[in-house]
Amino acid sequence: MKTKKLKLKNIFDKMKLKVKDMDISSGGPLVAVINRKDASMLDLHVMDRIKIKKGSKFETVVVDIAQSSKVVPKGTIGVFEEVLNSLKLKNNDKVEITIARKPLSIDYIKKKLDGQRLNKNEIDQIVWDIVHNKLSAVELTYFVAACYTNVMSIEETILLTKAMVKHGSVLSLNKYPVIDKHSIGGIPGNRTTMVVVPIIAAAGYIMPKTSSRSITSPAGTADTMEVLANVIFPISKMKEIVLKANGCIVWGGSLNLAPADDKIIAVERPLEIDAESQLLASIMAKKHSVSSTHILIDVPMGKYAKVKNRVEALKLKSEFEKIGRRLRKHIKVIITDGRQPIGNGIGPCLEARDVLWLLKRDPRRPLDLEKKCLMMCANIFSMVGIKNGYKKALGILDSGKAYQKMVEIIKAQNGKEIAAEDIRIGRFSYDVVSAKGGEVVEIDNKFISRIARIAGAPHDKGSGLYIYKHIGDRVKRGEKLFTIYSESKHEFEYAKDVAKSEKVFVVR
Amino acid sequence: MKTKKLKLKNIFDKMKLKVKDMDISSGGPLVAVINRKDASMLDLHVMDRIKIKKGSKFETVVVDIAQSSKVVPKGTIGVFEEVLNSLKLKNNDKVEITIARKPLSIDYIKKKLDGQRLNKNEIDQIVWDIVHNKLSAVELTYFVAACYTNVMSIEETILLTKAMVKHGSVLSLNKYPVIDKHSIGGIPGNRTTMVVVPIIAAAGYIMPKTSSRSITSPAGTADTMEVLANVIFPISKMKEIVLKANGCIVWGGSLNLAPADDKIIAVERPLEIDAESQLLASIMAKKHSVSSTHILIDVPMGKYAKVKNRVEALKLKSEFEKIGRRLRKHIKVIITDGRQPIGNGIGPCLEARDVLWLLKRDPRRPLDLEKKCLMMCANIFSMVGIKNGYKKALGILDSGKAYQKMVEIIKAQNGKEIAAEDIRIGRFSYDVVSAKGGEVVEIDNKFISRIARIAGAPHDKGSGLYIYKHIGDRVKRGEKLFTIYSESKHEFEYAKDVAKSEKVFVVR
Repeated sequence: MKTKKLKLKNIFDKMKLKVKDMDISSGGPLVAVINRKDASMLDLHVMDRIKIKKGSKFETVVVDIAQSSKVVPKGTIGVFEEVLNSLKLKNNDKVEITIARKPLSIDYIKKKLDGQRLNKNEIDQIVWDIVHNKLSAVELTYFVAACYTNVMSIEETILLTKAMVKHGSVLSLNKYPVIDKHSIGGIPGNRTTMVVVPIIAAAGYIMPKTSSRSITSPAGTADTMEVLANVIFPISKMKEIVLKANGCIVWGGSLNLAPADDKIIAVERPLEIDAESQLLASIMAKKHSVSSTHILIDVPMGKYAKVKNRVEALKLKSEFEKIGRRLRKHIKVIITDGRQPIGNGIGPCLEARDVLWLLKRDPRRPLDLEKKCLMMCANIFSMVGIKNGYKKALGILDSGKAYQKMVEIIKAQNGKEIAAEDIRIGRFSYDVVSAKGGEVVEIDNKFISRIARIAGAPHDKGSGLYIYKHIGDRVKRGEKLFTIYSESKHEFEYAKDVAKSEKVFVVR
Repeated sequence: MKTKKLKLKNIFDKMKLKVKDMDISSGGPLVAVINRKDASMLDLHVMDRIKIKKGSKFETVVVDIAQSSKVVPKGTIGVFEEVLNSLKLKNNDKVEITIARKPLSIDYIKKKLDGQRLNKNEIDQIVWDIVHNKLSAVELTYFVAACYTNVMSIEETILLTKAMVKHGSVLSLNKYPVIDKHSIGGIPGNRTTMVVVPIIAAAGYIMPKTSSRSITSPAGTADTMEVLANVIFPISKMKEIVLKANGCIVWGGSLNLAPADDKIIAVERPLEIDAESQLLASIMAKKHSVSSTHILIDVPMGKYAKVKNRVEALKLKSEFEKIGRRLRKHIKVIITDGRQPIGNGIGPCLEARDVLWLLKRDPRRPLDLEKKCLMMCANIFSMVGIKNGYKKALGILDSGKAYQKMVEIIKAQNGKEIAAEDIRIGRFSYDVVSAKGGEVVEIDNKFISRIARIAGAPHDKGSGLYIYKHIGDRVKRGEKLFTIYSESKHEFEYAKDVAKSEKVFVVR
């Protein structure tokens, strides 16, 4: 009975159509549009699946239906960029379409939505389908909503982590230990990676660090590192750099590490939900993909940080430790001060300058950033059994070895050694001064980010802010609080006016 | 502080762009595409909102971002059909865009996803935003998923029903009682509406019936009625028809009654989920919109019906009664035999012929359909206090008054009286006979529907099936079980081959 049905499908439910390039991307999911009349012949509805066959190649895609004949007339199939590339189609190609089943993962997503636990095969199938663009945005949203309302167990989170790693690229190093770190986002500045990696690598440890670009902040570590070196590499080249320099600071986005993660984050954004299990799986998967064995997790806590209070922070810490044990990773979670920016520069060039000053032991270096980086190094050293790590890290900094290591990494990443003074900062600048004297009691991280972004960061690397005061500092009336820098007159004016009208620093 | 921020938004976060007609519909949500570089200037991300202004008109839409300059270069804005129509834009028009907030309903959807109850204002806002295409498919999906996992209370369901009615058209009749009926779908044939409405209207009661078109079945009542009369009317004309003829049988889809409902159903389809609260709200909202006071709900129960067993049926019955009481409607729920098709014809013309035979007391009329319709009328009569309703309904049928009323309704709906014999049935026909003698013990509704659809129903109105045997009937070897009719040779051949290979009737 079953084979008969399948046979019939092959014989009868197919149709030849002419390709029309829609000249636009769907943004991920594999989608094609057919005319209402053709859809009706095959009894197809919006979001059903069809298999498109061209020669010996085929691809299963989600159907959209054109109600009029204006763009997709009867007999044609409108194809989005993703499908076009996957099947190497061009305008007027003839393709054959047949009805296809929904991906298996649809049933598993339904199962999770119904509150049941998923097993290894089910989670694996879902992640495979996500990675291969087999799910529509609506279907993927159901998965995220299901994991949000019916929170994944630790077992499921581990399976999700492993599946994300499996269906992505992997950096195999066959070394032990392999050091890594991750800071939960939301704090402007905070360029610890660019100090910690050279210190740890200079101490002889391997640290294959991947970083992100900015999404909503004025700069991600990848944006800042890009001021000094190239950050886009294939995974084979990343391996070469790490084996040569002990460490690297590259952009994770081009490496295809745990790619399911980025697609999940995209549908989380509209509701700003953070399914905890996915946050954990996402971070652990990226670390697992580069073979890390010892991972330091920095959880900044503060009013404007992602983690608002101690209860949330301790919960996250405990979850990380649990999943770490289960994945046989050494995990250490530190809860840090997330009330204000770390360092003085905000924006790629201004942050890169801070980092070089710090590594070169320049008196202008930001001491809050230095202290935090040394503390992080101390924690890493302690994980691998080294005592007095703070002192050791400071010694590496003071000896110039960390700076030398950074230059080595920059060169390995096709960059050149550059003096901090030669980093080009935006030529338009404006000083914001305090309206009264007193003590700085609060800094609004969100406005700091917003003004820096309006000034042009991160796309204009020289734009951003430079902060002179931190919480607890005394300030006189008329004294500078921060300077806005911008590469463009137009954006500069915007940023200036926003800065004037908003209370970024609270002085009491 | 707040006013300042708003003022600043108006002054600074805007941009002039040139319209590019994308020449395609988004399928609902208001969407526009801008180039990556422009997006970065305004700090916009995928699924953020912008307000598009053209002269004094404006519309808030969801942003998509083009990564390349191929389709949407810097300085242009790619506009989908929905936005184009809403703002009456054309190619190369200049528009101004400003950053807009997310709709308020996003917070309320999040709240429901977090398991909290929604109040009147919150549900109202969500429905308003759905009706006005303010939510992206992803956001709407979160709402459906939230209501599915965190089941709505009766109070919330009632608020949802009322909001759906409020944000749609309403037929005000100022009459009492106003009769209505609804059959839960899934049963081929089952054209009770076209018999019940003329009987009830002939008895002097008002019955403003709206029906649906087929979605996955071979015909909806609106498709079948369309064989005899027009079914597409504006609501003002529907009112005229009802006031003149006491009843109508029109397509609900063009009337804009509770339009949020159709948009919700569209995102439910991929996972085939039926959030119970939404099913209830959806049906009750459509009835409420036409001012119905006495509503009969038919719940067919059977292996291949939507409702599989008595437990499910009774639960649904109790929910309908609860919500009916709260909306001050008289509701009666009947659980009926949903094991097999009702009537003999399947497909618009074949069903219309059955109905005319029945109303004209032709010996060829389907007695199972007649019996069910009389039983339904008896229930309706009993709701309005009339005893012996079955006999009364039969009297109206036998006297020819129901037929006369049907002719009156057909004429009011711009149709002409037509003899059952003059209804054109598909010219290709094929008889499927029984391979053995015995008793019919099962009929597979799903295959009945599938074969009728492959033969061309509902788009070819003359295509479909005619069934000779029902469950419990005796059949001889070689005796006809059903005939396939089709208007097209091509589709006929498909349907024939599928029918030959599938076991539609089980004979024992």
